[in-house]
Amino acid sequence: MNDERDGLQTAIGKLHSHLAQPADECELCHRPGGEILWEDGLCRIVAVADPDYPGFCRVILGRHVREMTDLADAEQVALMRVVLAVEAALRRLYRPDKINLASFGNAVPHVHWHVIPRWRDDRHFPQPVWGTPQRTASAPHAAVPLRELAGELRRRLGPGTAGG
Amino acid sequence: MNDERDGLQTAIGKLHSHLAQPADECELCHRPGGEILWEDGLCRIVAVADPDYPGFCRVILGRHVREMTDLADAEQVALMRVVLAVEAALRRLYRPDKINLASFGNAVPHVHWHVIPRWRDDRHFPQPVWGTPQRTASAPHAAVPLRELAGELRRRLGPGTAGG
Repeated sequence: MNDERDGLQTAIGKLHSHLAQPADECELCHRPGGEILWEDGLCRIVAVADPDYPGFCRVILGRHVREMTDLADAEQVALMRVVLAVEAALRRLYRPDKINLASFGNAVPHVHWHVIPRWRDDRHFPQPVWGTPQRTASAPHAAVPLRELAGELRRRLGPGTAGG
Repeated sequence: MNDERDGLQTAIGKLHSHLAQPADECELCHRPGGEILWEDGLCRIVAVADPDYPGFCRVILGRHVREMTDLADAEQVALMRVVLAVEAALRRLYRPDKINLASFGNAVPHVHWHVIPRWRDDRHFPQPVWGTPQRTASAPHAAVPLRELAGELRRRLGPGTAGG
């Protein structure tokens, strides 16, 4: 019974996701959410313009889906592959002390991942960037041109369908 | 040249990870970090005892590795499969309004994922749980016995090697 109910629930969630139209009020359905560095049929990678966090990127699912587990298994794997390609690209180009990954969507329930290079002397370290600031501003770190980051992403993920 | 250097860097990172001994100062190398609900050779799932966030779990890598991209590709996929099994189990048992996923490791640079059921009337919503509290306490929600959560995890992931 549990299995049946669970399977049905999953199937309904996936059907709903596949049928999902852009949500009227969802900003990620109607705006890119940053400068697009790479995109394909599943998702886009955008640069977040935050002076405290150079290299801060978001990986935003193309369609309006609430949770990772509303995606098909293969899509979950494909999306995480993109998220971790961003992590790898940022580690290589920005040499941060740590990478932070997060998917919340409390205010905007449309799957999107934050990929954030962190430094020990950045504004919030060791807190998450959503926590209490620890200093007034981040110490300056590598200013990598976004075209270089876009090139690194293409190198790791293939050409994609636009951006860069 | 870039490919070679990058490949070498990746190989060194992976070799380092595979050779990694428990870090003397790493609390996740020396303590479970919560009540163990499930574990296998790769990772463990622990319950975080936070009265504001029933169902809050962490998925903690067994060995001391700094970043997701220090793992082999197959391990990345296997670990995310566990993280998303926790998400699915929590959605089913706790029926939260949203799931939050995060991997930071700024203070404890040993790969671990936070999997947090969120409700619109919880202590921090719509902020992340690391942000500014929005109310003095979370409204009460489903109190699911941990043995039931452990059973649900075994159902999704198989028996594992201990816990539950």
